[in-house]
Amino acid sequence: MNDQHGQHDATTVVNGRYAYSFDYDVMHPYMIESFAPFFQKGSLLELGCFEGGFTSRFLPFFNDVTCVEASAAALTVAREKHGDAVTFVNVRFEDAALPKRYDNIVMTHVLEHLDDPVAVLRRVNDEWLSDAGYFFLVCPNANAPSRQIAVKMGLISHNAAVTSAEHEHGHRCTYSIDTLERDATAAGLEVVHRSGIFFKALANFQWDRLLETDIISKKYLDGCYQLGQQYPDLCSSIFLLCRRGGVKVPTAQVAARA
Amino acid sequence: MNDQHGQHDATTVVNGRYAYSFDYDVMHPYMIESFAPFFQKGSLLELGCFEGGFTSRFLPFFNDVTCVEASAAALTVAREKHGDAVTFVNVRFEDAALPKRYDNIVMTHVLEHLDDPVAVLRRVNDEWLSDAGYFFLVCPNANAPSRQIAVKMGLISHNAAVTSAEHEHGHRCTYSIDTLERDATAAGLEVVHRSGIFFKALANFQWDRLLETDIISKKYLDGCYQLGQQYPDLCSSIFLLCRRGGVKVPTAQVAARA
Amino acid sequence: MNDQHGQHDATTVVNGRYAYSFDYDVMHPYMIESFAPFFQKGSLLELGCFEGGFTSRFLPFFNDVTCVEASAAALTVAREKHGDAVTFVNVRFEDAALPKRYDNIVMTHVLEHLDDPVAVLRRVNDEWLSDAGYFFLVCPNANAPSRQIAVKMGLISHNAAVTSAEHEHGHRCTYSIDTLERDATAAGLEVVHRSGIFFKALANFQWDRLLETDIISKKYLDGCYQLGQQYPDLCSSIFLLCRRGGVKVPTAQVAARA
Amino acid sequence: MNDQHGQHDATTVVNGRYAYSFDYDVMHPYMIESFAPFFQKGSLLELGCFEGGFTSRFLPFFNDVTCVEASAAALTVAREKHGDAVTFVNVRFEDAALPKRYDNIVMTHVLEHLDDPVAVLRRVNDEWLSDAGYFFLVCPNANAPSRQIAVKMGLISHNAAVTSAEHEHGHRCTYSIDTLERDATAAGLEVVHRSGIFFKALANFQWDRLLETDIISKKYLDGCYQLGQQYPDLCSSIFLLCRRGGVKVPTAQVAARA
Repeated sequence: MNDQHGQHDATTVVNGRYAYSFDYDVMHPYMIESFAPFFQKGSLLELGCFEGGFTSRFLPFFNDVTCVEASAAALTVAREKHGDAVTFVNVRFEDAALPKRYDNIVMTHVLEHLDDPVAVLRRVNDEWLSDAGYFFLVCPNANAPSRQIAVKMGLISHNAAVTSAEHEHGHRCTYSIDTLERDATAAGLEVVHRSGIFFKALANFQWDRLLETDIISKKYLDGCYQLGQQYPDLCSSIFLLCRRGGVKVPTAQVAARA
Repeated sequence: MNDQHGQHDATTVVNGRYAYSFDYDVMHPYMIESFAPFFQKGSLLELGCFEGGFTSRFLPFFNDVTCVEASAAALTVAREKHGDAVTFVNVRFEDAALPKRYDNIVMTHVLEHLDDPVAVLRRVNDEWLSDAGYFFLVCPNANAPSRQIAVKMGLISHNAAVTSAEHEHGHRCTYSIDTLERDATAAGLEVVHRSGIFFKALANFQWDRLLETDIISKKYLDGCYQLGQQYPDLCSSIFLLCRRGGVKVPTAQVAARA
Repeated sequence: MNDQHGQHDATTVVNGRYAYSFDYDVMHPYMIESFAPFFQKGSLLELGCFEGGFTSRFLPFFNDVTCVEASAAALTVAREKHGDAVTFVNVRFEDAALPKRYDNIVMTHVLEHLDDPVAVLRRVNDEWLSDAGYFFLVCPNANAPSRQIAVKMGLISHNAAVTSAEHEHGHRCTYSIDTLERDATAAGLEVVHRSGIFFKALANFQWDRLLETDIISKKYLDGCYQLGQQYPDLCSSIFLLCRRGGVKVPTAQVAARA
Repeated sequence: MNDQHGQHDATTVVNGRYAYSFDYDVMHPYMIESFAPFFQKGSLLELGCFEGGFTSRFLPFFNDVTCVEASAAALTVAREKHGDAVTFVNVRFEDAALPKRYDNIVMTHVLEHLDDPVAVLRRVNDEWLSDAGYFFLVCPNANAPSRQIAVKMGLISHNAAVTSAEHEHGHRCTYSIDTLERDATAAGLEVVHRSGIFFKALANFQWDRLLETDIISKKYLDGCYQLGQQYPDLCSSIFLLCRRGGVKVPTAQVAARA
């Protein structure tokens, strides 16, 4: 389901040596850094884990991790990686019957692949997210500067377009904060925080090559991450933190959580 | 110490009727809304509580609340409001000897009043903040659109200027995200999240008058708050979430918190 | 064709007294202020002049002014206003046969009404704009803060949506800079400058009411205009300055113009 | 006076082959592209031409070009380049006695070097700029993303800081749009347009190295330039277009110009 992950898993060894990949090596750690201050004590559900690469990063934080993934082939890889440390469910989101509600639900770079995103978000809100839990929703950003520059270059018709390459990879739409929030809200979710992850002026293929040079450093990447929080609309990915809508968490319960 | 609070406490009754004030009635609730997802279980320390107006809003979340305030007169009012529900300490930050470390420390619209802001921030980092605790640092924003417009109007020389009215109210500087982060970092703090509170295109005095009309609604205000998260640099206030610097929280402990 | 103009022409006298209107009294002068530094010596063609309200503002700059307008009723009003000072052509853009090329062509808040905007823009590029001339293209901005706030309020589904009220007024799409530039470029035009007109955090109906109070001043409006140039994406209207594409103006000719 | 120019003139041949430089090869052409739509017919005065590198780019547009430059050594180089095509005046701005007023005055990356910038700007306004002329004022931008990232990295204390390296190169301050406009206005100038030149997320040294690779293309650079017009505050350089203040240009004269 998550093309980008597989794409990069396949290219991490190039010419006999390890190649850094922007999504795997840069974005994944920064996503965790963005999520961590909001993590709730308890369980975590990852929707669309693909081969379990991102899943690894949740294990230091949670003992109770469940992953839902439609691709049996991908799950085989994920199971080899994580064994019994993670509960894997091989099912499409539309068909999933999960045994409980979760305190944290994560969906990163998956929603733009779905035929009926609101229907799946509604399941998150109605069936899977606990009353005091958080839903971490992340998508690639239509307005990332790298993309806006590609639009100026004539490579993409407009910011929210789906290119033919993206369509082949399974993208059905390209979200910006307003359209992502529209779908989250339509599903009944309440958006409580909006942010962005990584100020991004270069395209993935440019980053992948730059990461092999000494033109940029880890500190420069950290700076892009930090600056991104000040310009969410200009980030590589956009991040909505959501709660169940229409559920009034009793103040006492909020206090208990705090 | 916190002029703006006193200023508005004094003006909440105008011409025999209640007058809405932007800072008290609009910004305070939105500050809490911004903080709540990050609240840590345990104790809270408010640095600069003035007359305890903002303090009230923490009580539903915390049983263990301490306030430090230099003005004895202000604290008298605060004590009348809160009695034994809050521990009050009447002392200057520079001279305070607090009995423990706190899980949450809040300082809103206070730092810009201090003669040596880094020294006080260093006490927060070195002496008062617990290893896994959060420091919520909020200041008025030099780059708020309302202020940038006032600069264009010639009422303020440049965004980061301190006007003579501000100086009389005790302001010593006007922060933007970069300078606020500079001081936090200089004090040893680690900034883990940057955000803004309330997209603000009108000045306080304009808001105070608008709030008396039906030109704007509560939902419009909510929209300004929500949009502000997408444009932190264009918010009324800027908000840095900080942790103790140089303290490596063991993963297990982070997991426990989560 | 241009609903907004008519709408406001009809409402400029309310309750027996003059009422300020945001579009007529605020935006029109600022549009001229935005255009003036780019004006080319020679002729001006206004596409969609409605009742000639905006046309008046070009007369101090140009002796040779032509207006194309599809509505015969609107043109009757315009002719009464301007008589022989302006050449009026009552025809749809699609059917217009104009006698020459123009040094300046202006189209403001019209393109979003057209069924085939690229076809009309192509006529501008291929038939009507002189080789060294400028085309001034202005549309309402999907990303104006006032609109983004309305989206947060749930009044509009997403920034680029066409609301039912807008659809009734004849809007066919809602442009942002990227989609406006896409259409201009598709028509062969070359975009040489991008800007925005008026930093706008309040909706038209709010402005119309505010303009009747003393909460805002002319200087505040000027400040919003000036600040808007620094944040084109956050302006009431977006403004593309275009030239004929694929026409290499000889350096000598550019020099002559300068 | 203009260190950056000299710096790059000196490094254009590295290791026996031509090396691209960001300022000379990228920024200079884009500055011209930014200025051209505003050029006025007539004369041009360049304040601080250094060795005449940028001067070359004005010659296709103007027959009457004058340059003022304090460094005799630099002017020797400039004279060799341009001979009689340009009038050179070897004098400090403070001491210059120029024979007439100019229709276009250009000052790029010079103001931040001056001890008394307002005094020199006042001479521009009071003595050198013609009534209908334009003053093109460009400075490096404190808020360029590349710089904001360097601030996050701890290499620069805050956006508007002057680093010791900058100080050695003669910088006396680091402007953002608000402070640049403050000084222009203080000198009596009227700012009629604000823009930015080149959306810049990488530092000069990074660009200089990138330009030697095929990671970026000319079209990518063009995209950065075009996008920069939408985010002036995030550009490499900021650009104010000014007119003489307090001089009411008769409408007729404006019309004549147009």
